[in-house]
Amino acid sequence: MTDFEQKCINTIRMLAVDAVQKANSGHPGLPMGGAPMAYVLWTRFLKHNPADPKWIDRDRFVLSAGHGSMLLYALLYLTGYDLPLDEIKRFRQWGSLTPGHPEHGPTPGVETTTGPLGQGFANGVGMAIAERFLAATFNTADGAVMDHYTYAIVSDGDLMEGVAAEAASLAGHLKLGKLIYLYDDNLISLDGSTEMAFTEDVAGRFAAYGWQVLRVEDGNDLDAIESAIKEAQADAEHPSLIMVRTVIGYGSPNKAGTAAAHGAALGPDEVKATKDNLGWPQEPAFLVPDDVLAHFREAVERGKAAQASWQAVVDAWAAANPDRAATWQQMVSGELPAGWDADLPVFPTDKPVATRNASSKVINALAAHLPGLIGGAADLDSSTKTYINSDEDFQAGQYHNRNLRFGVREHAMGGIVNGMSAHGGVIPYTATFAVFSDYMRPSIRLAALSEFRPIFVFTHDSIGLGEDGPTHQPIEQIMSLRLIPHLDVIRPADANETAAAWRCAIQNTDHPTVLMFTRQNIPVLDPSLGMAEGVDRGAYVLADGPGGKADVILIGTGSEVHIALDAQKLLAEKGVATRVVSMPSWERFARQPQSYRDSVLPPAITARVAVEAGVTLGWQKWVGDRGVVVGVDRFGASAPYKEIYQHFGLTPERVADEALALLERA
Amino acid sequence: MTDFEQKCINTIRMLAVDAVQKANSGHPGLPMGGAPMAYVLWTRFLKHNPADPKWIDRDRFVLSAGHGSMLLYALLYLTGYDLPLDEIKRFRQWGSLTPGHPEHGPTPGVETTTGPLGQGFANGVGMAIAERFLAATFNTADGAVMDHYTYAIVSDGDLMEGVAAEAASLAGHLKLGKLIYLYDDNLISLDGSTEMAFTEDVAGRFAAYGWQVLRVEDGNDLDAIESAIKEAQADAEHPSLIMVRTVIGYGSPNKAGTAAAHGAALGPDEVKATKDNLGWPQEPAFLVPDDVLAHFREAVERGKAAQASWQAVVDAWAAANPDRAATWQQMVSGELPAGWDADLPVFPTDKPVATRNASSKVINALAAHLPGLIGGAADLDSSTKTYINSDEDFQAGQYHNRNLRFGVREHAMGGIVNGMSAHGGVIPYTATFAVFSDYMRPSIRLAALSEFRPIFVFTHDSIGLGEDGPTHQPIEQIMSLRLIPHLDVIRPADANETAAAWRCAIQNTDHPTVLMFTRQNIPVLDPSLGMAEGVDRGAYVLADGPGGKADVILIGTGSEVHIALDAQKLLAEKGVATRVVSMPSWERFARQPQSYRDSVLPPAITARVAVEAGVTLGWQKWVGDRGVVVGVDRFGASAPYKEIYQHFGLTPERVADEALALLERA
Repeated sequence: MTDFEQKCINTIRMLAVDAVQKANSGHPGLPMGGAPMAYVLWTRFLKHNPADPKWIDRDRFVLSAGHGSMLLYALLYLTGYDLPLDEIKRFRQWGSLTPGHPEHGPTPGVETTTGPLGQGFANGVGMAIAERFLAATFNTADGAVMDHYTYAIVSDGDLMEGVAAEAASLAGHLKLGKLIYLYDDNLISLDGSTEMAFTEDVAGRFAAYGWQVLRVEDGNDLDAIESAIKEAQADAEHPSLIMVRTVIGYGSPNKAGTAAAHGAALGPDEVKATKDNLGWPQEPAFLVPDDVLAHFREAVERGKAAQASWQAVVDAWAAANPDRAATWQQMVSGELPAGWDADLPVFPTDKPVATRNASSKVINALAAHLPGLIGGAADLDSSTKTYINSDEDFQAGQYHNRNLRFGVREHAMGGIVNGMSAHGGVIPYTATFAVFSDYMRPSIRLAALSEFRPIFVFTHDSIGLGEDGPTHQPIEQIMSLRLIPHLDVIRPADANETAAAWRCAIQNTDHPTVLMFTRQNIPVLDPSLGMAEGVDRGAYVLADGPGGKADVILIGTGSEVHIALDAQKLLAEKGVATRVVSMPSWERFARQPQSYRDSVLPPAITARVAVEAGVTLGWQKWVGDRGVVVGVDRFGASAPYKEIYQHFGLTPERVADEALALLERA
Repeated sequence: MTDFEQKCINTIRMLAVDAVQKANSGHPGLPMGGAPMAYVLWTRFLKHNPADPKWIDRDRFVLSAGHGSMLLYALLYLTGYDLPLDEIKRFRQWGSLTPGHPEHGPTPGVETTTGPLGQGFANGVGMAIAERFLAATFNTADGAVMDHYTYAIVSDGDLMEGVAAEAASLAGHLKLGKLIYLYDDNLISLDGSTEMAFTEDVAGRFAAYGWQVLRVEDGNDLDAIESAIKEAQADAEHPSLIMVRTVIGYGSPNKAGTAAAHGAALGPDEVKATKDNLGWPQEPAFLVPDDVLAHFREAVERGKAAQASWQAVVDAWAAANPDRAATWQQMVSGELPAGWDADLPVFPTDKPVATRNASSKVINALAAHLPGLIGGAADLDSSTKTYINSDEDFQAGQYHNRNLRFGVREHAMGGIVNGMSAHGGVIPYTATFAVFSDYMRPSIRLAALSEFRPIFVFTHDSIGLGEDGPTHQPIEQIMSLRLIPHLDVIRPADANETAAAWRCAIQNTDHPTVLMFTRQNIPVLDPSLGMAEGVDRGAYVLADGPGGKADVILIGTGSEVHIALDAQKLLAEKGVATRVVSMPSWERFARQPQSYRDSVLPPAITARVAVEAGVTLGWQKWVGDRGVVVGVDRFGASAPYKEIYQHFGLTPERVADEALALLERA
């Protein structure tokens, strides 16, 4: 390493040290130990354009160990992203662009939100999948419009997480050769030595997954790092894990190599000692020598040139392949093509249809118009009915297909579609049983936090799945998903609401959507009842009392809407005027103007009964003090589903009785 | 294999086939393929006493692939557990003891609840940990009172799940040599061939974890299975994975070896063909030949004898080690020893204390009286403060220590403590940040469903953690945990409520408890205010208006109780009489008689303001139509925590203003 390289690397280190010290909060250890490998990657390899952080063919860089955020912020600032030094001085302060952990959205150049360990690892796999899909779909002999690497820095903590293990196994299976991960192998995690809990043979494990495993014995050896990255690039058949032996907190005389450097400011004395130790001026803090900055900022011109030559390739390719180019342009723009929803099916009312089966028809209608729609299930496709029939499986060498086989890996599935969404050019979806939404909940949350747009399909959405029993029956899942901010949860009441729900999901480009479907057949409602607008608005009057007057409102979601409709008939026999409201999406309804909400749920009608095959907590918001909720506040049961509904009192008779009792109490 | 052995094995197969066919629902493929290995394990190795399914030193058997439940039910019935054949005929029917997936509780001999894949794998690791801990604590040269194996049958699906990967790595690290897993290596999962998504080198991966990996090339070769299990037993240093190549749906002429045998009844024609193919009588269904039953039922006498000889060892050992024996007896009984809570700390009000730090004092006070209290954190012990200071780390060869180092493996941590709880003799706890409760939510749910008793400690329980930002700040987690049935969530308001919360958690022997603690310091309330009873009852009047009269009720939990108390002062200045209710546990409060609930929240006082640093949805249950909730319906922010509270409007001023506005509207 030359003195100048050392100076550049120490600039990264000291920006991190000073920022963490000023905030008196943060994680200096990773940036200090990992700066050399980041330096090599960012100055010798990374294809990126700081002036256009959204360039579609840029290399992706994920700091999976998000706690080392200052490493990323330093690199972004130094290489010329729109992240001024002042923002680094405001590390972890209110409203800064430098939050404690990297967040997709506010900070230019941050590819994904990391911090919860293992997620970035899975995101990177999703980015590499998106890249291979787009490359296989669009590249021709005329030109490669999509051809980039996905890099990450991953930590011990990442590699201990199950979500990363799942993603790693799938990445190996799919032979994602353009995926290159640098493992910050520093032998220390938050609580101390990895000897305490993490003594497995990581290299052996990744080799078993089908990865190429490389080692750099000295994390300060820049040429060894460069050689390893080149070797990783040279292997197109296997993702690569480069195990870089680093020293956490490198440069700190008293804390390097210990957990003390991991998650707290070094302290003024140790900052001073570290600067002395590395030959760094004590003042000013946040020192960036001019020559260092100039060197890093070469990335700006290099990036412009790289993007320009790529653009030339694209232009020539587009001229030779105009139809393909039009599709490319549309997909990369993120806009929906005209007529994308023209062929959404309308379902006749003559026979009952499980909404999962209706969803299958909808997916296939959409897939014909949306070439970026790509997804699959966690080894439950034959149950979730989420296969795109025009395509085959996305597999190694068959990357143009849109059916992903995630295996029984729900958590990685969530992390992967987040990465695909972050990559752009695709509309990714997942599928599994609703109860297993719990397995992927951390990724769903991060999708919402990051403003990603995956569509999470969950079938078998209630006790209506029957015999599989309580381990497989969601009870609290619907409501718990409603609790996540920035997430639309839609539980359609029939096949036609299902089409409308998918339409909403496709249009949700800046936040994720959960779609919940039944296993069991349920009646199809008259499509003239206005599902498209009704679902779009979250709730609507499905059936009203005579002359639009009602003494009582019954509110339902999904399959239980039909219980409400049957209860309405029973109440009509008793002369009670009843409104039935279908409320497939609380979030969408809550976003409507008060006037619309009051038109659906008039404040004057306080006799309200909600019915949903899930926990009752939360429904008080809509039924109010006088209202009653018919739900399920226990775990499910194993039996034919109609019996479970009976035993649990989810019946039209019960709902009607509750409504009558309400009116009597009035 | 002798003809008689074949007959025994076919009895298992056909019980499964007939039961699934009668239910027209279920998974015949695993029992048909796995029957030989189960037969060998249960007739040649398993130490168990069908007459006493709770014998503490029995070998544990986990069917991690819970969808193959009929395999387990067949074995339990055949070997003489209190599970009559009639229950097998009622497979998957309402109220039967044979639900779709095995459930801990209703069915004698079912060690844990399985079905959600990977969970049983982690449970078994927990059982093996509990076994080693009790063995190291109690066994002497006079006798081994605890010395058993933990076996499981695991599937492709189990091995794809991250939770199993995490648990496997930890099991290898801990050198749990008495853990022996049979891998039903049948190359088929629900959607088809494992070639679709699961082509990793499983043997290499487990070797990398530090497991002994053995192979049985023919899953019908009983002697090879026996040899492999013996070899597994012989290696005391490594857990063993025996990869048994089986044929899913073995015996079915048209469905064997295909996914069609996995998850649906074979159908009448194929049942007939299968019986013909295996030389099994067509009638009657559920045939159990007398000689087969007699052979399996030898387990009853064998089990009695085994337990009797163990009891003799225990008796002799107890005579030689009376003090140790008394402790053993107490721990195994599950009863709490007299005076267990005598030394719970009482915290003075002179200085603020983070409840995580209070919890640390409480844990150590409890650990001195409760030798079965054992737990740890997911590499966050230095933040969660959950270390038992009298002990060192539980590590290979140091199994007597009570501090578990889970590594960054939250999900496995949850599954492991469930297994420890299922094992008995211990009071297990976990710890991580509250936001990461999402990572382990499937295990928390299963703890509740299974009536296990882990204590799940979650610290950093709000935006009050500050700078780490939204990726680490729980927003929806508190409420989403409240949605899980059979789970107590307790979020104490100060150090003294913390002691009371731990007291409740220790007493919750038949369901799990979540304890939520602050990172930040908060004031200590006067211990004479009745926290012990107040927390026990879930909510109580912490501070009342003058003369016990109040115009408005402020309800808070955790750190926000202090905001309510400060608001009370502001309101007093305005002449408003205010009651402050601390509501640490909704579930415990909901279990109180109506009279108590009405005494805390008098129905006549409808002016209510709730304050909690989390989502508002759900609070409507307590504040009612007139009420207001001051909460957080967005993701958090990275900044010093006091600023976040200000920006988010979680302040005494805001609460007081809301209360005044409420009263004005009246």
